[in-house]
Amino acid sequence: MDYSKMCPKFESAAELLGKKWTGLIIRVLMGGPKRFKDIKEQIPDMSDKMLTDRMKELESLGVVKRTVYPEMPVRIEYELTEKGRDLEEVTNSIQAWGEKWM
Amino acid sequence: MDYSKMCPKFESAAELLGKKWTGLIIRVLMGGPKRFKDIKEQIPDMSDKMLTDRMKELESLGVVKRTVYPEMPVRIEYELTEKGRDLEEVTNSIQAWGEKWM
Repeated sequence: MDYSKMCPKFESAAELLGKKWTGLIIRVLMGGPKRFKDIKEQIPDMSDKMLTDRMKELESLGVVKRTVYPEMPVRIEYELTEKGRDLEEVTNSIQAWGEKWM
Repeated sequence: MDYSKMCPKFESAAELLGKKWTGLIIRVLMGGPKRFKDIKEQIPDMSDKMLTDRMKELESLGVVKRTVYPEMPVRIEYELTEKGRDLEEVTNSIQAWGEKWM
């Protein structure tokens, strides 16, 4: 990697991943499709509004897919796309570093 | 990795790394010891105050070491500690994902 100058692709990836709660949301979704309340359960300190905003963002960036099941009541699930699942290396490396140094 | 519940170590690592500019600063320092102005050069949009705050934080967390060389004028350099260098897997995986998807 050329560390002598900043890389725009690294910069935009780091900005996306660096947003508060995003890293945690992605880690939860690594466990498979989840409903809103399942995600909130693992991240209780995050507000509903924040989760709603982050999911819209991640959906618009193609990292998360939202599926509406026309049941009674309606069931909505969120899951990682291929692009999202490809972040597993990132979450694994943060996990490994956290276990060693935190 | 157990995705069924949040991991406090992952959470604190993600929070540290997720702070705005921190990921970029760490990437710059992967290239070796740097002076304040060298870091600013690669991240022009970041204010001096922000960089000062982040460096204090990273120093207090043991991720960065600050060395003062008693020359005329004084020379101050920042470098990653072992704990900091151990983030290379994280920065590499963000770089790889960014190159593929951004």
